[in-house]
Amino acid sequence: MEKRINELTNWMKQENIEFAFITSTANIYYLSKFYTHPHERVAGVGVFQNEEPFIICPKMEMASARNTGWSFEIVGYDDTENPWEFIHNAIQKRKVSVATIAIEKEHLSFERGEKLQNLFPNVEFKAVEDKLNELRLIKDESELAILREAAKLADFGVEVGVSAIKEGVTELEIVAKIEYELKRKGVREMSFSTMVLTGAKTAAPHGVPGLDDIKKGDLVLFDLGVILDGYCSDITRTVAYHSINEKQQEVYDTVLKAQLAAVEASKPGTEIGIIDKAARDIIRAAGYGEYFTHRIGHGLGIDVHEFPSLNATNTNPLRTGMTYTIEPGIYIPNIGGVRIEDDIYITDSGCEVLTKYPKELQIVK
Amino acid sequence: MEKRINELTNWMKQENIEFAFITSTANIYYLSKFYTHPHERVAGVGVFQNEEPFIICPKMEMASARNTGWSFEIVGYDDTENPWEFIHNAIQKRKVSVATIAIEKEHLSFERGEKLQNLFPNVEFKAVEDKLNELRLIKDESELAILREAAKLADFGVEVGVSAIKEGVTELEIVAKIEYELKRKGVREMSFSTMVLTGAKTAAPHGVPGLDDIKKGDLVLFDLGVILDGYCSDITRTVAYHSINEKQQEVYDTVLKAQLAAVEASKPGTEIGIIDKAARDIIRAAGYGEYFTHRIGHGLGIDVHEFPSLNATNTNPLRTGMTYTIEPGIYIPNIGGVRIEDDIYITDSGCEVLTKYPKELQIVK
Repeated sequence: MEKRINELTNWMKQENIEFAFITSTANIYYLSKFYTHPHERVAGVGVFQNEEPFIICPKMEMASARNTGWSFEIVGYDDTENPWEFIHNAIQKRKVSVATIAIEKEHLSFERGEKLQNLFPNVEFKAVEDKLNELRLIKDESELAILREAAKLADFGVEVGVSAIKEGVTELEIVAKIEYELKRKGVREMSFSTMVLTGAKTAAPHGVPGLDDIKKGDLVLFDLGVILDGYCSDITRTVAYHSINEKQQEVYDTVLKAQLAAVEASKPGTEIGIIDKAARDIIRAAGYGEYFTHRIGHGLGIDVHEFPSLNATNTNPLRTGMTYTIEPGIYIPNIGGVRIEDDIYITDSGCEVLTKYPKELQIVK
Repeated sequence: MEKRINELTNWMKQENIEFAFITSTANIYYLSKFYTHPHERVAGVGVFQNEEPFIICPKMEMASARNTGWSFEIVGYDDTENPWEFIHNAIQKRKVSVATIAIEKEHLSFERGEKLQNLFPNVEFKAVEDKLNELRLIKDESELAILREAAKLADFGVEVGVSAIKEGVTELEIVAKIEYELKRKGVREMSFSTMVLTGAKTAAPHGVPGLDDIKKGDLVLFDLGVILDGYCSDITRTVAYHSINEKQQEVYDTVLKAQLAAVEASKPGTEIGIIDKAARDIIRAAGYGEYFTHRIGHGLGIDVHEFPSLNATNTNPLRTGMTYTIEPGIYIPNIGGVRIEDDIYITDSGCEVLTKYPKELQIVK
């Protein structure tokens, strides 16, 4: 963790930023291994150019913060105390004069920005996201090892889901079975609400599972992932139940071809937009362009959606160590949809597909 | 929903606010019944004094937004488009000149505030939270009906958890069983990560379940809730496994006595701080004051933690229709803890306890 904090302080020195206050769950974790969802309470990591950093958190989370191995100061406050006074004191104690503060502008609320401005009138804010995104972009060996395990658990989740398919079983029952088996393996938290959709509902890229039951001839779409040691996985598979009609088969084949093309294009140096284009060209050529309504994928790591965004307009190159999803889909309203998603790690020469559940069309009997 | 939007526009007229842009999951839902977790994408409800309101959301969520029954405009954008331009256009189309915008200052990010400032230079922001909190504070009959059902499901979750206790079973296995059975009943989402803690881990008010297994003589703490039709429940119960020692028993009895006193004090007109005091006085008198490290409770509704905060310094009176938790706890580091939590609805003359799982000490054999 000290290496990560050092990288941040080096940047702060270059940019003349006296204080950085990091408050998102993901970046707190990245800098300190302290994993916290403080809800409406304030938690954060305070970093200086030369002085000791600190964690501030509700008093009742101090023990958890200490258990991470964090060797610097931990400031706790209770529900009747004002955390901003504690932050102010922590800065004053270090005799640092603050003119510029680095914050997560996309995360810190407008209200909290105003609170910092009240503590330090005339303070200037600089966004720290780009720097932290850049640091988090390239995964090291220890992160890759976790991501591989997280992907394996996602594969297992799909396996459980597929084997739970039978006539009359509901989407939510399958969700329940998947999460039950994953929890038994020690998974504490899914990386997002597990999605199992059937029939026409598969046409909603962000649909919500319900008491709809599976019928013969349905497509069944699984989109799920786990959080393991702070890192996320994210997989989507679509299978058919009992039989598949010609149209469904054509959509499936098109999505699979598009997905494989985007995986094939994944190597260091490739422009990110090309990944989207590789898949989208195939879907367009098949006449389904208007039904692929989202980008090809997103960065994956501590956040299930993180930097970079893999969309058509991104001209940055892929680099060794990046991890992201490839997830083309075709969604035809009132009929149904197919999405296939893998987690990809960029190697020196190409890519490693972390999720390994088979992608060939599976007709569950 | 129109009634709620009308209440908001009435306030906007009084305050001379031309445009309100509401972006939190909870308040979008409150105003539109559109339940969305847009992650890093922009979603919101735009409200004007006299013109038609609109929803903006990613294109792929437009169908879900429409399915709520929202009869006004829905603006969709895809991942290559700039949602802020669409917001700007929606405002210009209505020929509204914007000098003041109401935003959720605690929710809208600093970055998004800057984006709005770029669209409307010199714009003034006003916080809309107090108004929406005030509207959401008093639950109507339809909300109460849902909250009662959500509480029943929380009771059921504890029942499942308690009956899963046996020697050697892990915290996460019990979590899995609870969520499995709730999903089978149609619950899509828990209101927060289900907590099952054993032994010394019960001393962490925000502890995380793991592969720790239950041993004879352990306390086992359950803290869980469901989201039903957009509304949350939240219950905590602590039971003993096999046997209880004198110290544990004393802590349990103290927490229960404190909890009952706070429930007893819950009626219209009572100052909120008195609820905290009623419980805290008992815990202090028993010598455990320093181990009750958090407030007595929090408002409950669309958010599992919502306005108001039930802490010692809150001098506002309780009002008929308010819903909140009462959850005193005693946490002794390295030994263990007890918390007992109910969901409370304030009636005309007192209160209704929505969660009904028994609170008398239970020793699971």
